[in-house]
Amino acid sequence: MTNKLFVDACLGKETPYTPVWMMRQAGRYLPEYMAVRAEAGNFLNLCHDPEKACEVSLQPVDIVGVDAAIMFSDILVIPDEMGMDLSFVKGEGPKFSDPLETQADLDRLIGGEEAASKLTYVYDTIKLIKEKLADDKALIGFTGAPWTLATYMIEGQGTKTYNICKKMMYANPALLHKILAKVTEVVKYYMEKQIQAGIDVVQIFDSWAAAIEPSNYDEFSWKYMVEIADYLKAKYPHIPIIMFPKGVPAFIEQGGVYGNFDVFGVDWGTPMALAKEKLGEKYILQGNMEPTRLYSKEATTESVEKIQQIMGGKRHIFNLGHGILPDVPVENAKHFVAECKRVSGKK
Amino acid sequence: MTNKLFVDACLGKETPYTPVWMMRQAGRYLPEYMAVRAEAGNFLNLCHDPEKACEVSLQPVDIVGVDAAIMFSDILVIPDEMGMDLSFVKGEGPKFSDPLETQADLDRLIGGEEAASKLTYVYDTIKLIKEKLADDKALIGFTGAPWTLATYMIEGQGTKTYNICKKMMYANPALLHKILAKVTEVVKYYMEKQIQAGIDVVQIFDSWAAAIEPSNYDEFSWKYMVEIADYLKAKYPHIPIIMFPKGVPAFIEQGGVYGNFDVFGVDWGTPMALAKEKLGEKYILQGNMEPTRLYSKEATTESVEKIQQIMGGKRHIFNLGHGILPDVPVENAKHFVAECKRVSGKK
Repeated sequence: MTNKLFVDACLGKETPYTPVWMMRQAGRYLPEYMAVRAEAGNFLNLCHDPEKACEVSLQPVDIVGVDAAIMFSDILVIPDEMGMDLSFVKGEGPKFSDPLETQADLDRLIGGEEAASKLTYVYDTIKLIKEKLADDKALIGFTGAPWTLATYMIEGQGTKTYNICKKMMYANPALLHKILAKVTEVVKYYMEKQIQAGIDVVQIFDSWAAAIEPSNYDEFSWKYMVEIADYLKAKYPHIPIIMFPKGVPAFIEQGGVYGNFDVFGVDWGTPMALAKEKLGEKYILQGNMEPTRLYSKEATTESVEKIQQIMGGKRHIFNLGHGILPDVPVENAKHFVAECKRVSGKK
Repeated sequence: MTNKLFVDACLGKETPYTPVWMMRQAGRYLPEYMAVRAEAGNFLNLCHDPEKACEVSLQPVDIVGVDAAIMFSDILVIPDEMGMDLSFVKGEGPKFSDPLETQADLDRLIGGEEAASKLTYVYDTIKLIKEKLADDKALIGFTGAPWTLATYMIEGQGTKTYNICKKMMYANPALLHKILAKVTEVVKYYMEKQIQAGIDVVQIFDSWAAAIEPSNYDEFSWKYMVEIADYLKAKYPHIPIIMFPKGVPAFIEQGGVYGNFDVFGVDWGTPMALAKEKLGEKYILQGNMEPTRLYSKEATTESVEKIQQIMGGKRHIFNLGHGILPDVPVENAKHFVAECKRVSGKK
C-alpha cells in the first residue's frame, strides 16, 4: 500500500472508498481557473508557465475535493515541440500552420528524446505541483495517443470527417504508420520524463479513437498505446497506467483489448456493465458518468448510484465518461465528487 | 415480388443480387450536382425547387448505377415549416434564428398535419421523380428522427456537445418530451404524405443517436421512431421502413432494438458481424462500409468483400455506414457500386 488512495485503487488494492477525479477538472467551469488563464493571456501561455499551470492543477483538489490532480497541459504541446507550429485561434481551436503531407514533412520533425527534452515547462510544472500537493493525493501525468496526435498533425486542426487522415490511412498507410511510430517514440520519452519529474500515474488519452473502424483500431491506434505502456511498465512497474480510448464499445465488445496496463477508462457511450463483463477481471475500470448529467444534481446522483451498483465498490475509480463542460455549476461538480464518496462508503 | 429489386430486398425476398445505394448519393461529389446547385443559388433553394431537386435525385441512378434514388431534400425543412426560421450560413451549416427554450416557444410552432401540409415542394419533387425514374428502381423518402430534429431546434444549430439539449434532458425532461412528441406528430403526417406522393421506401435518419447515453436512447429517441413506424406500417404495410440510428453499437449489443420496421441501417462503427448476430434474424440489414474507404479502390473492394462474406448475400442491402463525402472521386463511387453487384452475383 502507498499513502495514496488513488494509486492503490489503480493497482487493484482495496481502498476505504472509491477514489474520484474528473477529466478536464482543471478547467473553465472554475472561476479560479478563468482568473489565472486571463492573467496568462491565452491558453498556450498557460501551458508554458509552470507556476500558473501548477496553480490551476491544484485548484480542483482544493475546491472540488477530487482524490487526484492532473497536471495542466495540452496534448498538442508534443507535436509543437517536434517542430510543428501550434497556435490556438479564438473560437476555432488548435491550428498547425504546416500539416504533414509527405515523408519529407515528417523527416523535418524532431523525434525521440530530443523532442521530449524540449518539454521542460511540463516537467517543471510537475515538480511544482509535487511540492504543493498533499501527500495523500496523486498526480496524474498524461499524453495524447499517437493516433489522436497524428489526426491534428495531418489535418492541421480539429476535424469532423478526418478525411485527410483517412485518405492517408487507406491510400498510403505506410506513411501514416511512420508518423505514428515517430510520435510513439517521442511519447515514450515524454512519459518517462514525466515519471522522473514526479507523476504518480499515467493516463493516455485517445480522444479520437472512435474515428477509426473497430476492425482497424488495433492497427492504427491501440497497438501504439500498448507499445508505450510496455515501455513504461518495463522500467516503472509501480506507476499505474490508465488507457482511455473514447468511443470504442465495439472494440471492447469484440474483446480486442489487450496490453500491459492497469486501468481502462470507460467512456460514457460504453455501458459500465458491458465494460465490467468484458474487461473487469483484467483491468481496474475508471468512469463513466455522462458529463452533461452534471447539469442536474438529481441526474448526477442517479448515475453515481447506478455505477456504484454495477461496480460494487470494487476495482473501480469514479470519473466522468468524458471531460467536464465549461458551463457546469461548480456546486454540481462538488455534488458529484461528494456523491461518489458517499455511495462508496467514505467515513 | 414487385418489379423493384430494392423493395423486394427490404421485404426479405430473395433477389438476383444484393441491391446497393449510398447515403448522400445525391450530393457534392458529383460535378453534375454542383452545377444544378450553382443554378439554384443555395442549398435551401435547391430543396424548394422540385424540378432541380428531381434532377439531382436522379443523377446517381444514372451516373453511379445505384438501385434506388433518394429524394433530394434536407431533414430541417420540417422544423422550418413548423415555423422556425431556417437558414444555411456558408461554412457554418444550418441555423435557426429563434431556438426553442420554453413551452411557449413550442406552443407557437405549427403542429401535426397542418405543418406537414406545408411541405408541398417535397411532395412535388417526389411526383416528378416518379415520372422519370426507371420502373425497376425504387424511390426512398426520408425524415430526420424526432431526436435529431429536436437537437437543431433546441441548440439553434449543429453542436459538438449538445449541452443545451442535455440541460433540458436532465433538468427538464418533460419539456423535451413535449418537443419530441410534437415533432413526431408532424413526421407521421409528413411520411404519410410522402407515401401518398409516391415513395416506395421510408428511411428514418437518427444522425445524432450517439449523443444520447445507451441507457436513455430508447426513452428520448428510439421509441419516437418506433411510434412513427407503427403508424405507417398500420396504414401502409407494403412500404418498407428503414431505421438508421448512427452510432449505437451499445444499444444494439444490449438488445434494445425493437419495432415494427423492416430494415436496420448499420453505421460503420458497428461491426456487421455484431449487427448480424443481434439483429439479423429480425431485420434486413443495410450497410455498412466506412465511407472514407471510397478514397481507395483497394480499400473499397476489401470492405465490400468482407461485408459480403459476413452477410452471405442474404437479408442484406449494400450501403455506406454514413454519407459519402464531397471529395470522393466519382469513379471510386462507381467502383463501390460495381463491386457490390459483382460480389453478390449480378449477371
